[in-house]
Amino acid sequence: MDEIKDFKFGKAPKLSELIDAYGDAGFQATELSNAVELMKKMKKEKCTIFLAFTANMVASGLRGIFAQMVKEGWADAIITTGGSLDHDMIKAYDSYFLGSFSADDAKLHQEGVNRIGNILVPNDRYELLEEKLKPIFAELAKRSPVSPSEFAMEMGRNIKDENSFLHWAYEKKVPVFSPGITDSAIGLQTYFAKQKHKEFAIDVTKDMKGLADIVLNADKTAAIVLGGGISKHHTIGVNLLRGGLDYALYVSTSESYDGSLSGAPASEAISWGKISEEGKHVTVRADATLAFPLIWYAAQE
Amino acid sequence: MDEIKDFKFGKAPKLSELIDAYGDAGFQATELSNAVELMKKMKKEKCTIFLAFTANMVASGLRGIFAQMVKEGWADAIITTGGSLDHDMIKAYDSYFLGSFSADDAKLHQEGVNRIGNILVPNDRYELLEEKLKPIFAELAKRSPVSPSEFAMEMGRNIKDENSFLHWAYEKKVPVFSPGITDSAIGLQTYFAKQKHKEFAIDVTKDMKGLADIVLNADKTAAIVLGGGISKHHTIGVNLLRGGLDYALYVSTSESYDGSLSGAPASEAISWGKISEEGKHVTVRADATLAFPLIWYAAQE
Amino acid sequence: MDEIKDFKFGKAPKLSELIDAYGDAGFQATELSNAVELMKKMKKEKCTIFLAFTANMVASGLRGIFAQMVKEGWADAIITTGGSLDHDMIKAYDSYFLGSFSADDAKLHQEGVNRIGNILVPNDRYELLEEKLKPIFAELAKRSPVSPSEFAMEMGRNIKDENSFLHWAYEKKVPVFSPGITDSAIGLQTYFAKQKHKEFAIDVTKDMKGLADIVLNADKTAAIVLGGGISKHHTIGVNLLRGGLDYALYVSTSESYDGSLSGAPASEAISWGKISEEGKHVTVRADATLAFPLIWYAAQE
Amino acid sequence: MDEIKDFKFGKAPKLSELIDAYGDAGFQATELSNAVELMKKMKKEKCTIFLAFTANMVASGLRGIFAQMVKEGWADAIITTGGSLDHDMIKAYDSYFLGSFSADDAKLHQEGVNRIGNILVPNDRYELLEEKLKPIFAELAKRSPVSPSEFAMEMGRNIKDENSFLHWAYEKKVPVFSPGITDSAIGLQTYFAKQKHKEFAIDVTKDMKGLADIVLNADKTAAIVLGGGISKHHTIGVNLLRGGLDYALYVSTSESYDGSLSGAPASEAISWGKISEEGKHVTVRADATLAFPLIWYAAQE
Repeated sequence: MDEIKDFKFGKAPKLSELIDAYGDAGFQATELSNAVELMKKMKKEKCTIFLAFTANMVASGLRGIFAQMVKEGWADAIITTGGSLDHDMIKAYDSYFLGSFSADDAKLHQEGVNRIGNILVPNDRYELLEEKLKPIFAELAKRSPVSPSEFAMEMGRNIKDENSFLHWAYEKKVPVFSPGITDSAIGLQTYFAKQKHKEFAIDVTKDMKGLADIVLNADKTAAIVLGGGISKHHTIGVNLLRGGLDYALYVSTSESYDGSLSGAPASEAISWGKISEEGKHVTVRADATLAFPLIWYAAQE
Repeated sequence: MDEIKDFKFGKAPKLSELIDAYGDAGFQATELSNAVELMKKMKKEKCTIFLAFTANMVASGLRGIFAQMVKEGWADAIITTGGSLDHDMIKAYDSYFLGSFSADDAKLHQEGVNRIGNILVPNDRYELLEEKLKPIFAELAKRSPVSPSEFAMEMGRNIKDENSFLHWAYEKKVPVFSPGITDSAIGLQTYFAKQKHKEFAIDVTKDMKGLADIVLNADKTAAIVLGGGISKHHTIGVNLLRGGLDYALYVSTSESYDGSLSGAPASEAISWGKISEEGKHVTVRADATLAFPLIWYAAQE
Repeated sequence: MDEIKDFKFGKAPKLSELIDAYGDAGFQATELSNAVELMKKMKKEKCTIFLAFTANMVASGLRGIFAQMVKEGWADAIITTGGSLDHDMIKAYDSYFLGSFSADDAKLHQEGVNRIGNILVPNDRYELLEEKLKPIFAELAKRSPVSPSEFAMEMGRNIKDENSFLHWAYEKKVPVFSPGITDSAIGLQTYFAKQKHKEFAIDVTKDMKGLADIVLNADKTAAIVLGGGISKHHTIGVNLLRGGLDYALYVSTSESYDGSLSGAPASEAISWGKISEEGKHVTVRADATLAFPLIWYAAQE
Repeated sequence: MDEIKDFKFGKAPKLSELIDAYGDAGFQATELSNAVELMKKMKKEKCTIFLAFTANMVASGLRGIFAQMVKEGWADAIITTGGSLDHDMIKAYDSYFLGSFSADDAKLHQEGVNRIGNILVPNDRYELLEEKLKPIFAELAKRSPVSPSEFAMEMGRNIKDENSFLHWAYEKKVPVFSPGITDSAIGLQTYFAKQKHKEFAIDVTKDMKGLADIVLNADKTAAIVLGGGISKHHTIGVNLLRGGLDYALYVSTSESYDGSLSGAPASEAISWGKISEEGKHVTVRADATLAFPLIWYAAQE
């Protein structure tokens, strides 16, 4: 059995040294260290990797890591929400700001500022998005109906920003699946876009074959699932088609006692065949902005 | 100021007496009592009511309450996930079972049983769903592309079960919006259905106008939001179009520290204009299966 | 196997009917129903019952239920914090008030009002407590050193209030153990009391034998553990002496991922022998003000 | 306003670089960066620093950091539970092991192994503790009654281990307050020790003056509060005597909706005067084993 070892660096350790010490420390420190090992294994085993995350994470600095992951071949498919596409495009052109979790929201509203936890998004960012989406709707109306992944790819084609995951998804031909794409500012814009382009449609069934093919053609599959909701469920759900994931990393703040999918533990996915009985899985219980940069950078060392 | 009053029933109180005592007890007991008042107010003010919930709740006994709410005019629109449609249809024909949160999931998998918290769903229920969906795909392929709400309505037309919310949605012409409909067993079935009905498509943009019209034509709007994810976001997001909800009830187990929409407090929605600055809102922090029946039945008294 | 049954009351059910329906509904509704059954069993089996709770709950309306439990023979020993003694005595003389979770705390401070979640406690309540404690310190200084349970008993002797658990503990000779008694307003007052009564002392080791004797002489033991911290740990910890509890009910909002005792699941206690291997246990994940009145009143029916 | 900046290291950054990037990333990453700044400020302002933590953390690798903090003058007083003293002494002589959060607890019990989350403690460690405590009880019986801090100091005098916080507390004359000391293996041992040493007593009121004096003589006070329960409350509660803490860092996994002290936000403490109105405070929502090593080592750079 592995002993619990007390932290004992005389001065600040290197990141890799710190993660090694985490492995012997217990509780979530150990789980985080296990996550790093799992990430290394996914890569070594040449898994087809699904990367799932929620929109708020793209509003945060994690966006840069998602971009790097696509650029460096760490994601073979992305599964995310419409809001992620919104934030990724906006941030290619303008900034978000730091705020406070305990801000006065009525005052923010009067000032035209939207809050996401401790991140602030001025209203005009959505006017900017509207402008940037117009040529995209015009272009896509010609090939209607489009799938969400085609929509995302066209967005990526229009974005020139090294920190954009859509940009790199376009460059590297990594599909971005977004089964709930209209639940977003994009979705509200389709309401207006269809007044001009009556023929414009997004057929969500059109992505099912492409996604299924990735799963069915994979030798081994792995998922990096940050947060819950539709991104998580779609990622593990589609892996049913091949008898479950071989590797699954969850970084989650949700709990299982209410039976929600967001809080469902990896073991529950085994009952469904979404993770295989022999599948390796690690769950880190923490906010992804805190835990995932550690996991990601340590997995690179 | 209102005094905190100790519970002091000599014997088991009636439900309405208990809820009154909750109002004076503090913490979530008081919030639950506030929720009952808010529900009564929504109705008294003749609000257009949006009911949002997650799929796991339809797997639970809450399904019967959702059905009753639609039947009795307590929901003018439903916003939910594809999984909710799955469970509602399956349960019209066959049973789910009680299990344990700490079941052996590998063993369950070998036995062909899927777990959702402490609820068990045998695999053959999904074979049954496949059968029941076949005529629906065939019918809808003729009018393709369909919207998610059209898909849900056709399901409801085929369901004869007093406890089905889709049944009552069809009977009462209450639209069921499901922007992420393909993230579900239905979604996996579209993969197969399209092999037979190549023309079959679900255009998610097609529902935006109908949903927007409900919001824009409403005198006052209220939302009953159980759980998080896409159901929650779509409900509050669309109310942006009219300057925010007048009333919002959240029943939630999620937290705000990770900036997730699922855990975002009602006040955050005010910054966005998803709830109006003068909007009344109550949040009950509890599993909905425990809290919502109390709220619902007490609001009827 | 037990089927999941949808809620389907036409109108508001009686409490007992509602709890029956909870049993078939899944998730925490089912756990709450299981908790009612466990409570009935504890009583039927004539268990020695330990009741543990945290101080905030005494600030809430739960205080009245704790009093009733002692009065009606549902608690053979109470294990709680010093703050519980504070609140129980203060509320025998004056009121607490309802506030808001999102109050302006600096403003409250300026107004001399202390906040506990959505409960407000004016500062002068602690001046009142100081007055009420003076004769108690004077009396107990004569028999110094006293144990925490002797301190609590003397408080109970001085309180005439039907809703006070200390009052009933005195009347019914139910010991109140408070191993961390000085972490409280009482504790701060000992600092001043000792200036007058130099000999005054609270010997916490003096309670160990009395507590151990209750455990060792019991035929069967049961614990009702509301919340976490020292109250929870002391309750389950002392049951080590007899090979573990036969019945344990936890009502908790804490999680297990950080290895904390507050969030530790009942199964973890089995590894320690704090709950016996054959022990029955139920955990309800909810705020106790919401869940416990339901459990308590339903267990009386 | 500060912009949100995407992470964009080409390769693994140094710890200090990573923490800088956290500051611009939003959500808990930013709070963690704020925590590092607060720690530096506490030290720069020469605050009297209170360090509070729970017992499970001493079972984890954090024990080594607590030892280092005392050794290097980062803690002027420690406030913790009896279990922390247990684990610190045992680990000076023997090991704890890594396990799994989902272990089979009945099996562990049969094997004589106790579980704390994913940390395993063989039963014989407690026999070892019993042996090591015998001379301490014998020595302290001579000067009875002793305070909890005297008990802890005598333990520290007997421990020769560089990773023991009690060892360094003895060496550096840093008092260790433990108001609930008997809720622990030490407490159970007092039950047996008193059979031999009838006169042995622990007077918990005896520590109040020493603790109050530290608070009252301080120029500025700061608290580093890891976890909740009695350690947290005693630390902030005693700072009432001087009008509240100047600096407070909370690392917590608990929530506020149940009115518990463990989950109470820093702002609530302001209403009580436990943190001053002008006091600076930061809360990081995460397991301390994951977050605190980052904070600690980064604060040293």
